[in-house]
Amino acid sequence: MNRRMVFNMAGKVVTATGLLLILPTLVALIYKEFKVFESFLIVAVAAILIGFAVIKITKPRTNVIYAKEGFLIVALTWLSMSLVGAVPFVLCGEIPNYADAFFEIVSGFTTTGASVLPDVEALSHAALFWRSFSHWIGGMGILVFMLIFIPNMSDRSIHILRAEMPGPVVGKLVPKATDTARILYIIYLIMTATEIVLLFAGGMPFFDSMVHSFGTAGTGGFGIRGDSIMSYSPYCQWIIAIFMFLFGINFNLYYLLLIRRFKSVFRSGELWAYVGISVGAVALICADIYSSCQNLGEALRLSAFQVSSIVTTTGYSTADFNLWPTFSKTILLLLMIVGACAGSTAGGMKVSRVVIIVKTIKMQIKALLHPRSVNSVKFEGKTVGDETLKSVNSYLGIYCLCLAGFFFVLSFDSFGDIETNISATIACFNNIGPGFGGVGPMANYDGYNYFSKIILSFAMLFGRLEIFPMIIFFSPSTWTKQ
Amino acid sequence: MNRRMVFNMAGKVVTATGLLLILPTLVALIYKEFKVFESFLIVAVAAILIGFAVIKITKPRTNVIYAKEGFLIVALTWLSMSLVGAVPFVLCGEIPNYADAFFEIVSGFTTTGASVLPDVEALSHAALFWRSFSHWIGGMGILVFMLIFIPNMSDRSIHILRAEMPGPVVGKLVPKATDTARILYIIYLIMTATEIVLLFAGGMPFFDSMVHSFGTAGTGGFGIRGDSIMSYSPYCQWIIAIFMFLFGINFNLYYLLLIRRFKSVFRSGELWAYVGISVGAVALICADIYSSCQNLGEALRLSAFQVSSIVTTTGYSTADFNLWPTFSKTILLLLMIVGACAGSTAGGMKVSRVVIIVKTIKMQIKALLHPRSVNSVKFEGKTVGDETLKSVNSYLGIYCLCLAGFFFVLSFDSFGDIETNISATIACFNNIGPGFGGVGPMANYDGYNYFSKIILSFAMLFGRLEIFPMIIFFSPSTWTKQ
Repeated sequence: MNRRMVFNMAGKVVTATGLLLILPTLVALIYKEFKVFESFLIVAVAAILIGFAVIKITKPRTNVIYAKEGFLIVALTWLSMSLVGAVPFVLCGEIPNYADAFFEIVSGFTTTGASVLPDVEALSHAALFWRSFSHWIGGMGILVFMLIFIPNMSDRSIHILRAEMPGPVVGKLVPKATDTARILYIIYLIMTATEIVLLFAGGMPFFDSMVHSFGTAGTGGFGIRGDSIMSYSPYCQWIIAIFMFLFGINFNLYYLLLIRRFKSVFRSGELWAYVGISVGAVALICADIYSSCQNLGEALRLSAFQVSSIVTTTGYSTADFNLWPTFSKTILLLLMIVGACAGSTAGGMKVSRVVIIVKTIKMQIKALLHPRSVNSVKFEGKTVGDETLKSVNSYLGIYCLCLAGFFFVLSFDSFGDIETNISATIACFNNIGPGFGGVGPMANYDGYNYFSKIILSFAMLFGRLEIFPMIIFFSPSTWTKQ
Repeated sequence: MNRRMVFNMAGKVVTATGLLLILPTLVALIYKEFKVFESFLIVAVAAILIGFAVIKITKPRTNVIYAKEGFLIVALTWLSMSLVGAVPFVLCGEIPNYADAFFEIVSGFTTTGASVLPDVEALSHAALFWRSFSHWIGGMGILVFMLIFIPNMSDRSIHILRAEMPGPVVGKLVPKATDTARILYIIYLIMTATEIVLLFAGGMPFFDSMVHSFGTAGTGGFGIRGDSIMSYSPYCQWIIAIFMFLFGINFNLYYLLLIRRFKSVFRSGELWAYVGISVGAVALICADIYSSCQNLGEALRLSAFQVSSIVTTTGYSTADFNLWPTFSKTILLLLMIVGACAGSTAGGMKVSRVVIIVKTIKMQIKALLHPRSVNSVKFEGKTVGDETLKSVNSYLGIYCLCLAGFFFVLSFDSFGDIETNISATIACFNNIGPGFGGVGPMANYDGYNYFSKIILSFAMLFGRLEIFPMIIFFSPSTWTKQ
């Protein structure tokens, strides 16, 4: 195993985190938050220096990496940037306990948006910025970002791309992985900028427009007000709802749009399933909550916003859906599990996996009825290979096991009842944010003890990285065997 | 498709149900419940006559059946015996509404043990007997039973055995399927008789011993007292707890014991996993509830009984576990999903499936790390074939989808909250009986409306027959295509 390469990349990530921390430092300067400025500056400088030291010490003898190194690099990257990113919160005293700060920043990077803060409005601008900016970084993936700037990576970098990008199949848009990364980030940047402009044009203050666009782009969900998006204008709510939905679409499709391959976009089975699920859910919830709303427009806006927020696992809210009827809550709970499209910034199982699972079942039934017939699963116009089928189906297995495991460990804590614990597990593991009961959209995760908060932080990391990198990182055999 | 054979078997099942109804008719006679006697007698005679008529009309031209007919026979069998078995309850006026009666008898045959009756002690002896006896019939499977008496079935009857017996792989113990069925029923009969004797010896009235042994043998859970088993002596509680556990073991292992192949029994991976899970759960719950018990003995008895009851999906209770701490409730909820061994009378996912899923995941991780290595899953000393692996993994998919589907439809009903609906779905689909919240061990399913009750009845049938027979039965293409 190429250990040096793994730790070298970790060093680079720490440096990059330090560089990224300069942005909130500047924000602190602009808003004259001097104590906060000091904390962020210290951590930024320290991270850059330590990162450089690690890079020097671990200079790799070869650039060649395999799948294993890809997974380890991703796991170590996300752990180290979270460990570093939590420090400024503690140092400036706004989140005094490190476990809380760790939870908060992991929630940020994994684009979960779950918070332990009872009063988010007490935070400084710099801290708010850093929280939301972490969504933006985590959404597309920091390694995908770094691939753009590391020119001497071998072609093997696809292993990293594959391990960090969500979804069952990661394809390269163009032959070189670094070019793919660049294209993805350009699309990401343009869409984010468009949203900032549209929100600002609708009367939202610039700072608010920026942080909410970061939260939308990464499908994260950290807000800067206690009531999330509720107090903004209906126009702003619609803009955010639409953009959440757009950021839940596979980015490859935007690339195909750019190069004018409209037919391929139109024929995407995942896209249609995603649209169908979302529209259906909005219609059902709208009908269910209509009687408690002032008019159809309000019912539509509330249901569209909440569905868009939950299916893309963002987690913004404009209503306390914890108080909605069981029917609507049930739909939201199921959407939480499905999630949005593969290759987007959203979490969850991913629509494509669900589609493939449904198709596998159909094939299985056919095979039961006609044992001698030859069957295959088709998706996006292509036959799905046996390996992909296996991996999708075993992903469901490991997904369920992890869910059960986190749910079990959470029950050590006397805080939550069954509903709270189930929805907290799903909300963190699928990187959504709010759940039901004690962790509903108007509540927070502060009721859990520190042990549970650490566990939930890892649930978020497991979910964001789609389990395997973390399991491989933590399995002792990875580090002992050659 | 051999339609005649399918309907011919249904006719035979209706006749058999009529014959079985003679037993509760006799019970009514013994206890001088004349109105009930009349109702049961009418239905018994009618069923026998109608059944015979159907058999005559549909005399098949050939005995040859394939997998498809096997599934259809099983689905139609279970539907028709439930439709017939519900009638006496309505006729005698003890469960006046047919939807309630259907729920109750489906709950009996599928060995679920969920009830809509607010006061079970108001029922006549005959009705109580029929309820519990339906567990005994449904536990091992009525078709397995009938195979013993239908000598002219071709060797194809393995298709029926396979479709009715739970678990991922059904093997024949001996070359002929009918002999396998006979051996299974003899073991089943002896174990049931032993339990009756032991309970009766412990001071339980004979009628009570009989119905509770039926309920234990089928891992059903219908009791005859409002507080289930709570008011019986600790000795009786222990006997029932132990027998529930024993009926959750693969019956093949008992056969192996009989023919003195102890080594094979000892090496059963599923058995050890089952024992491990159960012992672990008892220890954890015992520690959790210890402080609220009088002494260690009581804590151990309560936890052992409830774990044994839930893991085997029986559903008897000696404590209102709805009031237990979240930790214990969480363990029980997870046990509900796992279930006991394949080839037993219990429901749930089955331990063997869970073990195979875990091993598949391990293999998947290995394959990710070493793409060129050859990996295989081993279980019970043998390599698990690719087809079985596929079917186990796609079973998890269809299991989750059905669970989500029933949970969704249940939310149309305004009765339950999320916790109640989730646990009602799991408790019915896995054939357990009691859940949490509004359907806890001291509550019942009467709060749901008739639509929900029918849906839950089908959830029980889907669960008992492991989904595929019911889906194939209800898919239109089955009946149109040749």
